[in-house]
Amino acid sequence: MANVTVIGLGIMGLPMARNLVDAGHTVTGFNRSSAATEKLAAHGGRAATSIADAVSGAEVVITMVPDSPDVEAVVLGEDGVFANAPQGVLWVDASTIRPDVSVRLAAAAAEAGVRAVDAPVSGGEQGAIEGILSIMVGGAAEDVEAARPVLEAVGKTVVHVGPAGSGQTVKAANQLIVAGTIELVAEALVFLEAHGVDTAAAIEVLAGGLAGNRILDRKAAGMAARSFEPGFRVDLHHKDLGIVTAAAREAGVAIPLGAMTAQLMGALRAEGHGNLDHSALLLLVEQLSGRGSTTTND
Amino acid sequence: MANVTVIGLGIMGLPMARNLVDAGHTVTGFNRSSAATEKLAAHGGRAATSIADAVSGAEVVITMVPDSPDVEAVVLGEDGVFANAPQGVLWVDASTIRPDVSVRLAAAAAEAGVRAVDAPVSGGEQGAIEGILSIMVGGAAEDVEAARPVLEAVGKTVVHVGPAGSGQTVKAANQLIVAGTIELVAEALVFLEAHGVDTAAAIEVLAGGLAGNRILDRKAAGMAARSFEPGFRVDLHHKDLGIVTAAAREAGVAIPLGAMTAQLMGALRAEGHGNLDHSALLLLVEQLSGRGSTTTND
Amino acid sequence: MANVTVIGLGIMGLPMARNLVDAGHTVTGFNRSSAATEKLAAHGGRAATSIADAVSGAEVVITMVPDSPDVEAVVLGEDGVFANAPQGVLWVDASTIRPDVSVRLAAAAAEAGVRAVDAPVSGGEQGAIEGILSIMVGGAAEDVEAARPVLEAVGKTVVHVGPAGSGQTVKAANQLIVAGTIELVAEALVFLEAHGVDTAAAIEVLAGGLAGNRILDRKAAGMAARSFEPGFRVDLHHKDLGIVTAAAREAGVAIPLGAMTAQLMGALRAEGHGNLDHSALLLLVEQLSGRGSTTTND
Amino acid sequence: MANVTVIGLGIMGLPMARNLVDAGHTVTGFNRSSAATEKLAAHGGRAATSIADAVSGAEVVITMVPDSPDVEAVVLGEDGVFANAPQGVLWVDASTIRPDVSVRLAAAAAEAGVRAVDAPVSGGEQGAIEGILSIMVGGAAEDVEAARPVLEAVGKTVVHVGPAGSGQTVKAANQLIVAGTIELVAEALVFLEAHGVDTAAAIEVLAGGLAGNRILDRKAAGMAARSFEPGFRVDLHHKDLGIVTAAAREAGVAIPLGAMTAQLMGALRAEGHGNLDHSALLLLVEQLSGRGSTTTND
Repeated sequence: MANVTVIGLGIMGLPMARNLVDAGHTVTGFNRSSAATEKLAAHGGRAATSIADAVSGAEVVITMVPDSPDVEAVVLGEDGVFANAPQGVLWVDASTIRPDVSVRLAAAAAEAGVRAVDAPVSGGEQGAIEGILSIMVGGAAEDVEAARPVLEAVGKTVVHVGPAGSGQTVKAANQLIVAGTIELVAEALVFLEAHGVDTAAAIEVLAGGLAGNRILDRKAAGMAARSFEPGFRVDLHHKDLGIVTAAAREAGVAIPLGAMTAQLMGALRAEGHGNLDHSALLLLVEQLSGRGSTTTND
Repeated sequence: MANVTVIGLGIMGLPMARNLVDAGHTVTGFNRSSAATEKLAAHGGRAATSIADAVSGAEVVITMVPDSPDVEAVVLGEDGVFANAPQGVLWVDASTIRPDVSVRLAAAAAEAGVRAVDAPVSGGEQGAIEGILSIMVGGAAEDVEAARPVLEAVGKTVVHVGPAGSGQTVKAANQLIVAGTIELVAEALVFLEAHGVDTAAAIEVLAGGLAGNRILDRKAAGMAARSFEPGFRVDLHHKDLGIVTAAAREAGVAIPLGAMTAQLMGALRAEGHGNLDHSALLLLVEQLSGRGSTTTND
Repeated sequence: MANVTVIGLGIMGLPMARNLVDAGHTVTGFNRSSAATEKLAAHGGRAATSIADAVSGAEVVITMVPDSPDVEAVVLGEDGVFANAPQGVLWVDASTIRPDVSVRLAAAAAEAGVRAVDAPVSGGEQGAIEGILSIMVGGAAEDVEAARPVLEAVGKTVVHVGPAGSGQTVKAANQLIVAGTIELVAEALVFLEAHGVDTAAAIEVLAGGLAGNRILDRKAAGMAARSFEPGFRVDLHHKDLGIVTAAAREAGVAIPLGAMTAQLMGALRAEGHGNLDHSALLLLVEQLSGRGSTTTND
Repeated sequence: MANVTVIGLGIMGLPMARNLVDAGHTVTGFNRSSAATEKLAAHGGRAATSIADAVSGAEVVITMVPDSPDVEAVVLGEDGVFANAPQGVLWVDASTIRPDVSVRLAAAAAEAGVRAVDAPVSGGEQGAIEGILSIMVGGAAEDVEAARPVLEAVGKTVVHVGPAGSGQTVKAANQLIVAGTIELVAEALVFLEAHGVDTAAAIEVLAGGLAGNRILDRKAAGMAARSFEPGFRVDLHHKDLGIVTAAAREAGVAIPLGAMTAQLMGALRAEGHGNLDHSALLLLVEQLSGRGSTTTND
């Protein structure tokens, strides 16, 4: 068991910290607003009052914050993790950020005597609560192995996918496939509705064949019912598709479907649906097909 | 058990006919070239010499031919199914054709005193051999129920999805999702390779989360290995995407990802890869990313 | 001067017939509804009561009807042009139809002893009234030369672009470029508005450089003012983009921007804007950017 | 006449500086490599040895460098324009950079007592040599008016399009339209070639109608001849489309055709054609249509 610090106790970070407590780790938490820190304290963790306080004595520091600049703010600078954590500490960034930033921060960590792995997660709030996240991990093999016991307390599938930044790259690919699949299912559903097909029966038979995917399993029924309670919000997926398209451009990789999906997710957000579940791409397909609907969450 | 006629004994129709024999039905087969008919005879079926001969005394007539004009040629006209089958016969069209043609032929069937269901299948040659096809069935409820015992001899999932033509509509949606998912996985794989990620590990972790789909399960490893042995050929998927885009246009449904995928599948075919497995969309993404490769099947 | 028959006296055909009268030709007109025929008679033409009557004694027969099936209906059959016009008559199809249908009808014409050229026009109602249409002509060189004096009475630019059907192919390419350019200008305008740029000044400077095009010259100011009085209706351009995408698919030509533009024009129509000018693609871009507007024509 | 300093004497900056000399201004030039500075000296300008030297006594400072970071390097910092130019100097940035960077630098200029206008140009090397550039100018009205006499020495069309950064925004829109139009013309040309049409005749008639644009006028013949001597290089247009897509994303504006065009330009570059003229998009369309060709410049 280890001394683990969790920085960022939002809808993902807090349940992850709780699961670390439940697994027997000594857990310290820090969050910009203290309400979340108090919730962790009530669950058996220690509430830190600053990053410096939080990382004092830590063996593992997990960061779980919204975006690239947030991670930079937390780890760099006089008050940050690198300046205040013990030499040789293992930093696990579970945030979803730009792969190039992740690579850059891993190099900065090395200079500061900090071991770094990037470990973004998939599975959403429910996966975090149940401790069954999928975790894609980048970094040196020995650091990834050192992080594994901690990661296995919060996730079910923990896979080492390559050197520093690779976790973020795989997460970007994950977000590309998820968004694209939602859009494909949305196009299929509106197409089926327009033809008067029984969509519940259609979803069943589609899910059973080569077209089968998790969106059909978990989200298509909600889409057919126009229920778009998040889940994973359009705003966040829009952010992530910005990461994918930038990283693909940087690498010279063509992603025509990814680029078009990013346009559609951006349009959904621009139309004011940023707080709906990402499966609300169906609303856009419906609109572009001249088929109005009222939603239950907007 | 019923008297069942199968017209079209190709790579799908022949194993389906064999499974009907094995299930105890009395099976008559007809094919333009007699070699396939003889194979059925060797398996316990009757080899017919003409459509009129084949449908004489039939209770159920299954057609399994390549495209809309082929079905029209088989059922219409003096020598066709409608003119020669017994009144009240149940016609099951397992071909993948245009939904509007399917609707039109169902109406022509009704005028000819023939009951019609459309029942396109998913699952490929292997699914046909193993008798585990997914079958999406359109037609009147009583006709679909009458066809069910016969369909369950060749498929595992048999779902009634709506009135006449609905089976074809769902099959079209199936082909839209399958092609689009292949393209998304192809974009993700090339993106991961360009970043030096371990793709086998990445496929594992992607398959375990919300990005999970059958293409990742069954085809991604082959794609990563540049093995494009069909499987389902690009030429056929190109035909099917023509059906989807035409049907969506007819219905006024926007399918931006479907339309772009149809362009890419068409390009893959235009570049001379029509005989590869549809997962060869990866080659196109690779080309557009300036990353050459040699394939094992081309 | 020649005996010229014009079949189809709509918003394009009637002014073309009048210009032929003004140029000194002997003009006979036929239209399904007689009101237009009477207008031609009032301008010095002869009002025919049937196609057979109209083509009797004709040296040149011009057809100007909406779509492929309309042309087929007018020229084929017992009452049609081919069965009733004098041997050796020159048939000029000014309609915009599918290139493959045009090729097929040219062959049918040859069998019927009729010389055929396809001569679709660009320039709109105003161009037809002023006699300054651009005309793209397909057919045998001697037939095109024979048609030239008649075509020059209705158009300013008359160009022989290739064998039978080539006129339609070039018209299809024309419609591809026009629709795509409208969409590009729409994207640019909404982009500029979102950044608070003076769009009138921007249109001026854009029109002066390599970005310059006729849409900027003739339609951008109306688009900026949300004035979408047709002009050329969305419904018709949607029809034409169906021709382009089908012909490109048939020829194995990739048109990614054309295909996406066709999706957008289809969406604009599906949303109920079929009767607006095609420049109303701006409304769709605006909608997808979360920027509402009220139009003056809808 | 004014004391004008030009920083950045590349293929655009040098001829602009020469035209300023010819117009009677007192011109000082600075370039990282001294060869270009010497060429200006030979034409009657003064060769400066540093930025500080160059801007000493300047009334107007023009910067003409490749990208956003280059402009930042030239104006900011101890050795930069802002720290060394006289108070109240007028800075004219003719580079093509990100609008948001332009806005930020204008604010920094104001703090440093420097008046700033952004004035990116269109028209290419030939336009720079002939002094007939189109110039889209952003900034305060009085500053734009102050810059006008200098700008009119290098350009024919000088238009004030809005506040600081607006020039860059309009230039971004310009690059969106230009790239998209090239792609549309490329799709049309390959479509026409595949149908055996006389492309020279087709270009003539297309250029005469609503499809008419500068790409048809200036580049289509070269495209048809597979002559892709730059002109404006793919690498640079790829950079500019990165600016457009980022700025559109930032502003929440949907640019589906722009995004797809950016994918295609990126693919052309990834395939190794970065040094060809941007009209080489035709090669990509040809490739995706299975129609090979050999180029004269690659």
